[in-house]
Amino acid sequence: MLDFTTGIATETNPELIQSVKAKLDDLTKPTGSLGTLENIVMQYCSCCGDANASISSAHIYVFAADHGITAEGVSLYPKEVTTQMVINMLEGGAAINVLTRNAALGCTVVDVGVDFDFEEHPGLLRRKVARGSGNFLHGAAMTNEQCMKAIEVGYEIGAQTESSLFGIGEMGIGNTTAAAALSALLLGRTAEETTGMGTGAVGSVYERKCRVIDAALELHRKEWDGSPVDALRRVGGLEIAAMTGSIFGAASQRKPVVVDGYIATAAALTAVTMFPSVKKYLFYGHVSNEFFHRALLSEIDGEPILDLGMRLGEGSGAALALGIIMQAMNCYHQMATFSSARVSNKDD
Amino acid sequence: MLDFTTGIATETNPELIQSVKAKLDDLTKPTGSLGTLENIVMQYCSCCGDANASISSAHIYVFAADHGITAEGVSLYPKEVTTQMVINMLEGGAAINVLTRNAALGCTVVDVGVDFDFEEHPGLLRRKVARGSGNFLHGAAMTNEQCMKAIEVGYEIGAQTESSLFGIGEMGIGNTTAAAALSALLLGRTAEETTGMGTGAVGSVYERKCRVIDAALELHRKEWDGSPVDALRRVGGLEIAAMTGSIFGAASQRKPVVVDGYIATAAALTAVTMFPSVKKYLFYGHVSNEFFHRALLSEIDGEPILDLGMRLGEGSGAALALGIIMQAMNCYHQMATFSSARVSNKDD
Repeated sequence: MLDFTTGIATETNPELIQSVKAKLDDLTKPTGSLGTLENIVMQYCSCCGDANASISSAHIYVFAADHGITAEGVSLYPKEVTTQMVINMLEGGAAINVLTRNAALGCTVVDVGVDFDFEEHPGLLRRKVARGSGNFLHGAAMTNEQCMKAIEVGYEIGAQTESSLFGIGEMGIGNTTAAAALSALLLGRTAEETTGMGTGAVGSVYERKCRVIDAALELHRKEWDGSPVDALRRVGGLEIAAMTGSIFGAASQRKPVVVDGYIATAAALTAVTMFPSVKKYLFYGHVSNEFFHRALLSEIDGEPILDLGMRLGEGSGAALALGIIMQAMNCYHQMATFSSARVSNKDD
Repeated sequence: MLDFTTGIATETNPELIQSVKAKLDDLTKPTGSLGTLENIVMQYCSCCGDANASISSAHIYVFAADHGITAEGVSLYPKEVTTQMVINMLEGGAAINVLTRNAALGCTVVDVGVDFDFEEHPGLLRRKVARGSGNFLHGAAMTNEQCMKAIEVGYEIGAQTESSLFGIGEMGIGNTTAAAALSALLLGRTAEETTGMGTGAVGSVYERKCRVIDAALELHRKEWDGSPVDALRRVGGLEIAAMTGSIFGAASQRKPVVVDGYIATAAALTAVTMFPSVKKYLFYGHVSNEFFHRALLSEIDGEPILDLGMRLGEGSGAALALGIIMQAMNCYHQMATFSSARVSNKDD
């Protein structure tokens, strides 16, 4: 197995943090009054290892894949919607296109496992590992090779992006089922604890979703080797593996990642379980309305920037949070200081 | 007394709401999955009385005034900082300048009562009613004429703005003391309940602030005629009165207002107490870190869009929330529909 964690800076630099804090305290505002925005600045500079770090550009990567588990009727939408929504994204009609276009963010769809052959497109990275994962009710979702390959796809994107930071989102009918199974397996929880409504599963669809996840957990707990990667391979998905890899790729370049919703957070859980030091590179864009998301964030000390009751995926919450992160960095670099603006400070 | 509430549309239109909801449900996303963004769209269209309402431009008005109560040592910063910060804003160095500039929002400072004669400036509206309010520990903060004039200043700005909607913020050393006193008087609370640290008052400064407010409340409760305007006049401030007026001015034109932090919310409390139907025109940008703000929002059924632990004022939280509101409206107008994008809906 490749070691995706080689070369990731893990040291903390108290002097750097002090220097950032001193600069923040010299801006024309009461000490600490920008709240979360000041924490964002400190984390961003700390990730980059540079007290003058700035954002030149930011990007959303939407990792897309199909899921064999959809054969069990766990979703409200037919499996074909994964392909249809990728096409919608390439045509610019999805929520994530609107949110990124109006915020001057880049947006790229990464086909890591959709059951359709897309033509070349400037908004698409064709990195297909397989035409969807296997049905994990009856076996592993991925072979070891597929899982490694998908992690590698994400790693390369994260390591090679030209953006200063990026958000990770996903498109894949069935993937809240995979995220719930993966979270339950890694955290030793039941399906009832980790399963939500996804795109809108209620009543009998929701009950079936829980039963399927419980049955899959029973199957895989017996054979699981206890490692995060084996959990990912068994009950995860190709886009979840790629998102996990993208976190390591970004961290290898000291770039932060903005994690979107429940499924992206399941990828973050996998990454953090593999290598806890990667936590410092992660921003959590929002807490979604998906049932277990808030608790999952707590498990990995994730503090969401936004709480807007969204449950759309696609990187939509990450895109909105990137707006806040960029404004925090704008304040840091563009505000006047007490001395430059000749404003009396509290100690004057 | 002028009636600032004449001509404000108060009817609700269930057909319009149905029409907006139908359009939202036809966009390529699971039903309701944009969460708060969908509520924002419904409220915005409802305010405007137009299911196709859109945002052509948005603005922040920063209402600035001095406060006689600063003579009691209730603030960490000297009174001169009001003037200095207005100059900083006109020079583009304050947080609100950075936040508006980078989000293509307009920003105008309204001098409604600063103790300094500013020269003409494109970013300034000179609408001075007085050179600061009186010290409300010893008498009313404003005469009746001053209070009415300040409300009128705000009303005209709200009614005449060319923006589709605007946010209201403030600058005024001492104004968390006025906001806490006003909230306490209107809601029948004590100083301990409504007083927070403002720009950073802790220890003896905080204790003095509470004592001053309690003493002022004792004085004014005896003579208060029970009306919101008389409360505003007695313990409010010129910029708080102007923000109150701006809400009525905006509502008269069916334009929504984005309320910023604690002081702007005290103005909203005054407006809502005067005329409860004005509630539908109000968005609450954020819940600040100021002690009583969350409870004050609850009193007027205000649901904050953001919760970022900020306590800066200037309209900074409103500016960030305007970004979210604009993105909500962008989604509403720019996303593809299930039929246009040939995406299978859940009922297909």
